Amino acid sequence: MGNKSIKISAPGSVSNVGPGFDIMGFALDSPVDEVVLRLNSKGKVVITKITGDGGKIPYDVKKNTATVALISMMKKLNAGFGVDVEVRKKIGLGSGLGSSAASAVASVYGLNELLDQPFTKDELIEFAMDGEAVASGSYHADNVAPCLYGGFIIIKSYNPLDIIRIKAPSDLWCAVVHPQFEIKTSEARKILPKEISLKKAISQWGNVAGLVAGLTTSNYKLIGRSIKDEIIEPVRAKLIKGYDQIKNSAMENGALGCSISGSGPSIFALCDSQITAVKVARSMRTAVTKTGHHSKIYVSQVNEVGPRII
Amino acid sequence: MGNKSIKISAPGSVSNVGPGFDIMGFALDSPVDEVVLRLNSKGKVVITKITGDGGKIPYDVKKNTATVALISMMKKLNAGFGVDVEVRKKIGLGSGLGSSAASAVASVYGLNELLDQPFTKDELIEFAMDGEAVASGSYHADNVAPCLYGGFIIIKSYNPLDIIRIKAPSDLWCAVVHPQFEIKTSEARKILPKEISLKKAISQWGNVAGLVAGLTTSNYKLIGRSIKDEIIEPVRAKLIKGYDQIKNSAMENGALGCSISGSGPSIFALCDSQITAVKVARSMRTAVTKTGHHSKIYVSQVNEVGPRII
Repeated sequence: MGNKSIKISAPGSVSNVGPGFDIMGFALDSPVDEVVLRLNSKGKVVITKITGDGGKIPYDVKKNTATVALISMMKKLNAGFGVDVEVRKKIGLGSGLGSSAASAVASVYGLNELLDQPFTKDELIEFAMDGEAVASGSYHADNVAPCLYGGFIIIKSYNPLDIIRIKAPSDLWCAVVHPQFEIKTSEARKILPKEISLKKAISQWGNVAGLVAGLTTSNYKLIGRSIKDEIIEPVRAKLIKGYDQIKNSAMENGALGCSISGSGPSIFALCDSQITAVKVARSMRTAVTKTGHHSKIYVSQVNEVGPRII
Repeated sequence: MGNKSIKISAPGSVSNVGPGFDIMGFALDSPVDEVVLRLNSKGKVVITKITGDGGKIPYDVKKNTATVALISMMKKLNAGFGVDVEVRKKIGLGSGLGSSAASAVASVYGLNELLDQPFTKDELIEFAMDGEAVASGSYHADNVAPCLYGGFIIIKSYNPLDIIRIKAPSDLWCAVVHPQFEIKTSEARKILPKEISLKKAISQWGNVAGLVAGLTTSNYKLIGRSIKDEIIEPVRAKLIKGYDQIKNSAMENGALGCSISGSGPSIFALCDSQITAVKVARSMRTAVTKTGHHSKIYVSQVNEVGPRII
């Protein structure tokens, strides 16, 4: 058993997607996180190594999303073995790109493959959410679900968990800029309003309806004009220096729509071609540079696959 | 000019459709309202006759939705003529089935046909909304738009007005029961909360997303489990005697989902076949009878046409 090992990559994801706070997300082709799992006979889960952008994540298996998810799964299996876990963080911590979700998904997906799939994806998601909850301070699925299933995801309800996967239009591209500073999801949730006006809520669910209609009918313009968020974006934009300028640069360079990815600071822009997405990503990087921050950019279609064995 | 006349029918509609308060609606094949327009040379709009369920609607052209809409349109045309208007109300007043919208739409659609279409439907809707506003006390389009365009409508935004038409799945049927008492839209709006919790709003837009995804991908089960409304339905259900029993009877007889149509008291249930819809409609009528009210029932597909010349 000691030699049985697997290496998995799991994609980053954009959650919220404008109006769909807490209920929408989609997976990216890049960046991805990787984990290497090796069954051990010590009967314990151990983190052997953390590399990449993981300098701040804990080696304590009860605090690391990857291992919390794994332990939750192994408890269900009544596993008599242990697992050595190596985490290769490529998705920035606190980037708003589903970093903690990706490590959690990679782990449970990997172990499931190693054990010849005792669980379905619908079962795996619960374990991954347990891992995610440790990092974000809340039990949500808008990164975990797109990361695990791939594609564009709607979380119709949490209780019971009801996840709908829709196929993204074939020419939909996403430009992402990740300014190099960290926003903790738990902190970004604290500043949200507890109550909102019915009027704003109506406007928000109008945009949600428009976005889903646009995605399912490949109406790119409709997708673009539905990426509006009057509730969360105005509050969280304050945490991102130069947000308006970055967004303006995306829109001026042809993005369909642009908003904050997850709790930020990453900003995503949807585009109707790869060429535009590249142009938009570069323009956002330039705008971020003007704020005094370094940044990384990514250009990707919607990842329809989810985790992969590598 | 005195002899130029036209007779139009315009469909009733179900608005809100569960989670889509103020942003969704669809047209029905029945009931319909009818108006007869006859150009006159008196230079004035006159209501010559009101029949059917219209005992309470005003002959005052500044208070009747049909004529307010017409006058709004004629003002834009700088019309030098007048119109005699006969209104045949078949959709109950205060039924929650878009009665005022139907009369307004029938009028502007009819005059537009009579004048060889000086306006597009996208222009007509504004006039119809002026008419609707007189009756409901608010400027909304969730009955007017489905009535005018036919089909299943999303009002993505009001400012600017952004209306999206989606084709309903071919086997979607709607059962409606209209208990014979009246709820004034303006009254039913007063009892609504001004503020709602972010948590409930998220749950609502999850269901909105599910409903649109279900409709655009013909996923009947998803449509059904998305007909949920935690915000408006609980408040307005109190205005409808026996609401829970009526809804239960629909669900027990195979409805996919069931909620209040518009501001009530009509209740609609979506079904995946005509046979089920008939059964559901009858069961709802029986449940209403037990509350001591008479009722009318309607079984219809989504009307994809809108107003018709008859």
